[in-house]
Amino acid sequence: MNPKRYLPILQWLPQYGRATLTSDLLAAVIVTIMLIPQSLAYAMLAGLPPEVGLYASIAPLVVYAVFGTSRTLAVGPVAVVSLMTAAAVGQVAPQGTPEYLGAALVLALMSGLILTLMGVARLGFLANFLSHPVISGFITASGLIIAASQAKHVLGVEASGHNLLELVGSLVANLGGVNAPTLLIGVSVLVFLYAARRWLKPGLLGLGMPDRPADMLTKAAPILAVAVTTLATWALGLDARGVAVVGSVPAGLPPLTLPGVELDLWRELFMAALLISIIGFVESVSVGQTLAAKRRQRIDPDQELVGLGTSNIAASFTGGMPVTGGFARSVVNFDAGAETPAAGAFTAVGIAVAALLLTPLIAYLPIATLAATIIVAVLSLVDIGAVKRTWDYSRSDFAAMLATIVVTLGHGVESGILVGVGLSLALHLYRTSRPHSAVVGRVPGSEHFRNVQRHAVETDERLVILRVDESLYFANARYLEDTVMEIAARQPGLRHLVLACQAVNVIDASALESLEAINARLKDSAVSLHLAEVKGPVMDRLHNTEFCHELTGKVFLSTYDAWRALHEEGVSPSAGKACPEAHLASGK
Amino acid sequence: MNPKRYLPILQWLPQYGRATLTSDLLAAVIVTIMLIPQSLAYAMLAGLPPEVGLYASIAPLVVYAVFGTSRTLAVGPVAVVSLMTAAAVGQVAPQGTPEYLGAALVLALMSGLILTLMGVARLGFLANFLSHPVISGFITASGLIIAASQAKHVLGVEASGHNLLELVGSLVANLGGVNAPTLLIGVSVLVFLYAARRWLKPGLLGLGMPDRPADMLTKAAPILAVAVTTLATWALGLDARGVAVVGSVPAGLPPLTLPGVELDLWRELFMAALLISIIGFVESVSVGQTLAAKRRQRIDPDQELVGLGTSNIAASFTGGMPVTGGFARSVVNFDAGAETPAAGAFTAVGIAVAALLLTPLIAYLPIATLAATIIVAVLSLVDIGAVKRTWDYSRSDFAAMLATIVVTLGHGVESGILVGVGLSLALHLYRTSRPHSAVVGRVPGSEHFRNVQRHAVETDERLVILRVDESLYFANARYLEDTVMEIAARQPGLRHLVLACQAVNVIDASALESLEAINARLKDSAVSLHLAEVKGPVMDRLHNTEFCHELTGKVFLSTYDAWRALHEEGVSPSAGKACPEAHLASGK
Repeated sequence: MNPKRYLPILQWLPQYGRATLTSDLLAAVIVTIMLIPQSLAYAMLAGLPPEVGLYASIAPLVVYAVFGTSRTLAVGPVAVVSLMTAAAVGQVAPQGTPEYLGAALVLALMSGLILTLMGVARLGFLANFLSHPVISGFITASGLIIAASQAKHVLGVEASGHNLLELVGSLVANLGGVNAPTLLIGVSVLVFLYAARRWLKPGLLGLGMPDRPADMLTKAAPILAVAVTTLATWALGLDARGVAVVGSVPAGLPPLTLPGVELDLWRELFMAALLISIIGFVESVSVGQTLAAKRRQRIDPDQELVGLGTSNIAASFTGGMPVTGGFARSVVNFDAGAETPAAGAFTAVGIAVAALLLTPLIAYLPIATLAATIIVAVLSLVDIGAVKRTWDYSRSDFAAMLATIVVTLGHGVESGILVGVGLSLALHLYRTSRPHSAVVGRVPGSEHFRNVQRHAVETDERLVILRVDESLYFANARYLEDTVMEIAARQPGLRHLVLACQAVNVIDASALESLEAINARLKDSAVSLHLAEVKGPVMDRLHNTEFCHELTGKVFLSTYDAWRALHEEGVSPSAGKACPEAHLASGK
Repeated sequence: MNPKRYLPILQWLPQYGRATLTSDLLAAVIVTIMLIPQSLAYAMLAGLPPEVGLYASIAPLVVYAVFGTSRTLAVGPVAVVSLMTAAAVGQVAPQGTPEYLGAALVLALMSGLILTLMGVARLGFLANFLSHPVISGFITASGLIIAASQAKHVLGVEASGHNLLELVGSLVANLGGVNAPTLLIGVSVLVFLYAARRWLKPGLLGLGMPDRPADMLTKAAPILAVAVTTLATWALGLDARGVAVVGSVPAGLPPLTLPGVELDLWRELFMAALLISIIGFVESVSVGQTLAAKRRQRIDPDQELVGLGTSNIAASFTGGMPVTGGFARSVVNFDAGAETPAAGAFTAVGIAVAALLLTPLIAYLPIATLAATIIVAVLSLVDIGAVKRTWDYSRSDFAAMLATIVVTLGHGVESGILVGVGLSLALHLYRTSRPHSAVVGRVPGSEHFRNVQRHAVETDERLVILRVDESLYFANARYLEDTVMEIAARQPGLRHLVLACQAVNVIDASALESLEAINARLKDSAVSLHLAEVKGPVMDRLHNTEFCHELTGKVFLSTYDAWRALHEEGVSPSAGKACPEAHLASGK
């Protein structure tokens, strides 16, 4: 057992030097500035008090620095996971109650345990069953829901709903109650942030500022919006004129919390915790891998599970909420020059200082400002182009994506993912349940065999060579039976049928029985069954089976050998081997 | 639209002649004799009055003759489906009530509708998702449960239970109440039927009787047991001494019945109806295909669904129960010389005559006799050899089989199938989520490329050729990313990476994004990505994608072309094509 594998901190801490320290500290300052408004906003999105967002950005970051394998991933509350948290916790407790806070802690703990266990059991591959179109559709739909759910804060009205239609309907119904100062603040921040995204960086570059500082300054725009609107609200007493503000936030370090262990609650939250874990993991790993590749580093997905899992466990014991690696902040961390996870730990220190000292200052922070920050952030997640590209490329991928979007918008986040995953698996299984196969003939004068329907090739009416283009398993084995029996029924002069198996990596027990059935039925019709180009590992398994002993024909090393022996019968009768003999020369 | 396809009767009725009539009539007489005790016994197994078994062997057979495609399949109540019927109906109504009978009719109707709709929608392939090990495990477990459930009738005691353990426990607890005359009858019939199966046919053959009549006579043993024990019970007045008998059975043709349409009942029975449909279909189609192949005939699985579906609908309107094609009786029908489905219609007439005239005679038929008939029939379904063979051949298939057996025995028939199907799909997906791939090198002096780990081949430290042995889809795409990035991280001098795609039939949208990511990450590491041997249909799709435009390398017709161009750089720089050009020469 290699301790460096399970404690990745041992890979970089011993070599930690002054230059690295400087880089990491600089990155930490920049990420801290970016993370403060994000933490507050995403806690609000999850229906939690703002300080919970700060708490979730302290201990988890330190723990990730110990167990995580990405050098630059920035962990904390993120938009999609916060939305999922709100949806899950909202089903077990009303917002604003101690039960709601407690359920969020339980969710973080369960999600942490699930991730850690998956990592220990090396189950990271499970995330692969979320296809790209499903993830992309889910994130687009989540972005729309999040934006719609925050619109009420920008307008200063009440609204609620469990899906997009309800939300929009409720917003429209309550439009009469719009609070003018709130709307002014919300729209100003929206326009400012949008403009900053769109024009600030080009403008700064135009003024001769180098690329990196221009980028950093642009990313810091939200903190500027927070500062200005807070100050304005305080100075003009806007809170007395109906502008909702964050209010008093307790100053101090994260409290020690003990998540509850009621079995019923755990059962109710289990599916949500599982989906949050997997979605969070997928998001985190993709950004981690992208950044690592830029420096030719590698991350270990199974150890990443442990890193994220322990971070979530830490969050659950320090008054936090579910966290994962965020895309935007990780890119900022990377661009700001972070070299090791120590940058994350320094960020945690920065956030802790903020939690200790800055909380009195944010009492006058308008909620509309936070909502606008969220809207601008999540609308960049909405990717209509991806929908179009998927439509162009593959109709079945598009179907899975569309189902995910429609169900997420119309019914909810959990059912959206589950339907998307179910449909993409079903479509995949449907596709592989009809294995591609082709009757091939010999390209004249060569040892090559090609599809008789596409090429002018030699054939023989007593001999059919069927090339099987997929591994044989239960779902497609009977289809092969049908194909073979149809060929046999169609071609009355048939005497030999060869299955060319160069693309067959596996023959499972069901496919073996289908081969037995094919052999027996062809025998009843006086047709011999032969195999050609069977891969070594497949042949090793077939070796001692009944099928092998009862095979009416032979096993040939190559399709050409089969053709020579069966077409020009008598020319080289020894080319094929009877089945039970070892079949050494055809290793993969 | 071809009416012969949807009404298979049109394929044989116009040519029906005298010789065929004689063969079909003879077969019908033999199958009728076999089917009478079976129908009574399987109705009892399903918890239904004995006449229901007879009714279910009349109208469904006539309807199958019109819509079915197998020439020799004999339809009627079968053991496994009757067990599933008892399990499903027993959950919604107590045995012996009109509701129980009504629920059995509803189950037959639903199963009939499901089968017919699947046939019309050409969904026959869905049955392929039941792997052979799962079916085989399920049938073995069902055989054990059926035998255990019938043991009480042979012993003359009360016993009940929802799974094997409960059944056996309840039997043992009640052993004190054994009824001696019942036990005598039950054990005698068991011994007689077992002996007939084992020794009668060899004995008759030894006496010089030809094979076929000897076989027929052996198969008629149950009717002899029924006659003798009925006569003995009547003559000795054994019913007064505690031998349970069938009792008075109404004489007459099947009644017209209308299955109920309560939505709640339909919902409760839906999953059972679906599983009964699929299990019945799989059993029926396998025996149908086996028999058809012996005469070089074909059956059409989708039309078979319609044939079985309409048979079940007919059963539901004529006082019957769920039916399907039975293995033993179809083989008898085939061996007795049946040539067309008319034999089935004639069998229906035979059973109708029995229902009209013979029912008074079976009032004294001991239930122990029927139970013994069932036990001998189902114990032949128990196939321990298959468990052993599956273990030897494939551990993952064995796991699915074992799970099916254990859950069926310990929890119930429905959960047994569902767990088996779920596990076999999960294991299959797991297997394909790690696509086989190999770094290949050139076999010296040839155009062949082989695995560098198995063969002594030429390699180049600036060039890696990775052969991908499976289609690329969402579940395995990230695994390929990992494999490629690991190679890139391991080999610092790398400049070119070639993916050899001869085994790739499909690249889905997720895999395309993974290829984009691979291309982008390799670019960041200053490595070019090339493709080789991409199949025509795959290339057609890649053609206009962003990936194709951003590909840092080229697309080569063959692996050898790639080697020549990249290894001997400058020798033939024009061998590869930039991606957007059409890629005509590499059709499948």
